[in-house]
Amino acid sequence: MTETKRTTEISELGEFGLIDLLTRDIELKNSSTVRGIGDDAAIIDYKNKQVVVSTDMLTEGVHFNLMYVPLKHLGYKSVVVNLSDIYAMNATPRQITVSIAISNKFSVEAIEELYSGIKLACETYGIDLVGGDTTSSLTGLVISVTVLGEADKNKIIYRSGAKPTDLLCVTGDLGGAYMGLQLLERENEVFKVNPKIQPEFIGYDYILGRQLKPEARKDFKEILNKLEVYPTSMIDISDGLSSEIMHICKASDTGCRLYEEKIPMDNQTKQMAEELNINPLVAALNGGEDYELLFTLPINDFDKIKNDFDITVIGHITEKSEGANLITTGGSEIPLQAQGWNPLE
Amino acid sequence: MTETKRTTEISELGEFGLIDLLTRDIELKNSSTVRGIGDDAAIIDYKNKQVVVSTDMLTEGVHFNLMYVPLKHLGYKSVVVNLSDIYAMNATPRQITVSIAISNKFSVEAIEELYSGIKLACETYGIDLVGGDTTSSLTGLVISVTVLGEADKNKIIYRSGAKPTDLLCVTGDLGGAYMGLQLLERENEVFKVNPKIQPEFIGYDYILGRQLKPEARKDFKEILNKLEVYPTSMIDISDGLSSEIMHICKASDTGCRLYEEKIPMDNQTKQMAEELNINPLVAALNGGEDYELLFTLPINDFDKIKNDFDITVIGHITEKSEGANLITTGGSEIPLQAQGWNPLE
Repeated sequence: MTETKRTTEISELGEFGLIDLLTRDIELKNSSTVRGIGDDAAIIDYKNKQVVVSTDMLTEGVHFNLMYVPLKHLGYKSVVVNLSDIYAMNATPRQITVSIAISNKFSVEAIEELYSGIKLACETYGIDLVGGDTTSSLTGLVISVTVLGEADKNKIIYRSGAKPTDLLCVTGDLGGAYMGLQLLERENEVFKVNPKIQPEFIGYDYILGRQLKPEARKDFKEILNKLEVYPTSMIDISDGLSSEIMHICKASDTGCRLYEEKIPMDNQTKQMAEELNINPLVAALNGGEDYELLFTLPINDFDKIKNDFDITVIGHITEKSEGANLITTGGSEIPLQAQGWNPLE
Repeated sequence: MTETKRTTEISELGEFGLIDLLTRDIELKNSSTVRGIGDDAAIIDYKNKQVVVSTDMLTEGVHFNLMYVPLKHLGYKSVVVNLSDIYAMNATPRQITVSIAISNKFSVEAIEELYSGIKLACETYGIDLVGGDTTSSLTGLVISVTVLGEADKNKIIYRSGAKPTDLLCVTGDLGGAYMGLQLLERENEVFKVNPKIQPEFIGYDYILGRQLKPEARKDFKEILNKLEVYPTSMIDISDGLSSEIMHICKASDTGCRLYEEKIPMDNQTKQMAEELNINPLVAALNGGEDYELLFTLPINDFDKIKNDFDITVIGHITEKSEGANLITTGGSEIPLQAQGWNPLE
C-alpha cells in the first residue's frame, strides 16, 4: 500500500491562514527586535548603532531552477545571500523581512518547506524574521529578502577605501558554486532524457554544497580581530570576482593587478571544470555565488595574514591610470571587464 | 513623417549600466541617510529613535494590469502602499529599497518610466531611495519595496491597544479605489472589443485617482496633534475595511460593532456602484486599496473629533465575547468575515 502525502491547497487556508501557519513558531532572538510580525510594520531599536540595510530578489528560472533545487535549500540560500552583504560591511545582521510571490502550483506544504529553510538560516545566523508579504504570482516563484543589521559607525568597511599598493585578498576559494551549478544542470539534462539514471554526484559534494547551501562569512569579523588587521575596503563575491574587483576599483578610484595563478580554487572545482571542458578561471572570475569576501589591506599587514590558510593575496591595488588588469599564468596582461573577463570569447 | 520614439534594449546597458542610469540623479534628503545606493548595503542613523520597517510585493496580473496602469503610476503606488504602513504606526518613513524583476519585453525607457513614479513618490513624501536589486524575470514584472522609518518609542501606535467602548473611526472615504478599478476593467474590456472607442471616464476622475494614484496619510499625524487626540490602535486600510477591523479586534482581543450607514463613501463611488450594479458596501468592506487609516479613540474624545470633516466614527469596540459585527442599514446584525463580508454570496 502506498501512502500518499497529503498536500493542502493554499486557498484552503487563505492569505492570513497561511501567514499564521508560517509564522506561528517564530521566536525573537535579538533584544533589538522590539516587535516582529503582526502589525503594519516591525519595530527595531539599535540604540546608538547605525542601521545597515540590503535587499535581494530571486526569481524562478533566473536564479533557481526548481527541477533540481530543493525548496528548503532555496529558502536557506535566499537568506544567506542577503546576510553576506551585511557581513561585507563589517556589520552584524539582526532582522530580515521576506516577501514571496507564489503561483497556485505550490501547496501549503511546499511553502512550509521553503520557510523551513528560511527559518534554519535565521537560526544558524541568529536572525529574527520580522515581517514580509505573502502574495500570489500568475507565473513563477519570486523571493525578495531585505536584511537589517547594526554597526558601530567607525567600524563600517566601505567599497571605497582601497589605496594603491594595498593587497587584494579573498577568503576561501572561488568558482565552486558555479561548477556545482554546471554539474546540477548536466545531471538535470541526463534526467530529462532518462529519469531512471541516477545522478552522478559522488566526489562532488563540496561544489554541490557551495551551490545549494552557501554560507555567509559570519566568522570573518572574528578572524580580522584575531589577526589584528582592518581592511581598507570590502565587498562580498556574489556576481564573480571580476565584477567585484571592478566595483572596488570604481568606488575607490584606483586600478589593480590580479594574478590568475593566485586565485584560490578547490580541487573539485578544477576537476569538474576539466570534466566539462570549462576554463576554471571563468568559474572564479564570472561564476559568482561563492559569497566569499574580497577585501584590501595595507601592504604592511602582509606578515600578519601570510600564514592564515583562509586568506589568499591575489593581487594589489594600483593607480587608476594603470587600469584594472588580470595577469595570466602565461604572463599576459588583460583588462578586466565589468561583466567579467571571458577567455572563451 | 512619423517620428519613432527610440527604445533601448536593457541588454545594451547591462545590469550595472541600468542601475547607474536609474540612480544617477538620486539626491539624499534625510540626514539619517548616511550612505545610499552604491555599496553592499545602505547605512542609516536614527540616533535614539526606533526603526520601523515594512515591506510589500506587487506582481503583474495580480496587483496590476499593465493594459491600463501607466508605469509611472505603478511606480508611485508601489511606494505609497508601503509608506501607508509606516504612517499607520504613527511613525515617519525615511528610506526605501526597491527591488524589481523585469522580463525582456521591457525597454530601458519603460523601466525609467516606472522609476520616475518611484522617484516622484520619494519627492512628495521626503523619502530617500537607498538600495535595491534590479534583476530579470522570465515572465511578468515584480516590484518589492521595503520602507524604513523612525519613531519615538512612546508614540508608536499598535493594532493591539483598542479597548471596549472605544470609538472606531476612519479617515477620508472608502470604496473609491475599488470602484475605480471596476471602471478601468470595464473600459479595458470595451477597448479589447473595439480599440477605436474612447474610454468613458468623464465624471469619475476621483475614483480613478483613488485607484491609479493613491496617497498615504502623511498629514494625519498633524491632524491628531491639532485635535489633541491619541488613538489607542491604528491600521491602514489596504485590504478592505472588514479585514482591517478584524485585525484590530484580533490583536486587541476585543469585538466591535460597525454601522453600515456610517461608512463614508464618495458620491462617485456610489454612482459607479449603481452603474455597475455592485453593492457599494462590498467596495468599502472588501475592496481595499483606499490607504485611509482605521483607528480607535477613547469615547471621551468624541467632542474633539466630531466636527472634523475628515474623520468619521463608524462604530465602537466591544468585549470580545460579543464578536465583530456589522449592523446593516436595515438593523440586522451580521458577523464580519476575516476575508470581508460579502452580501452577494
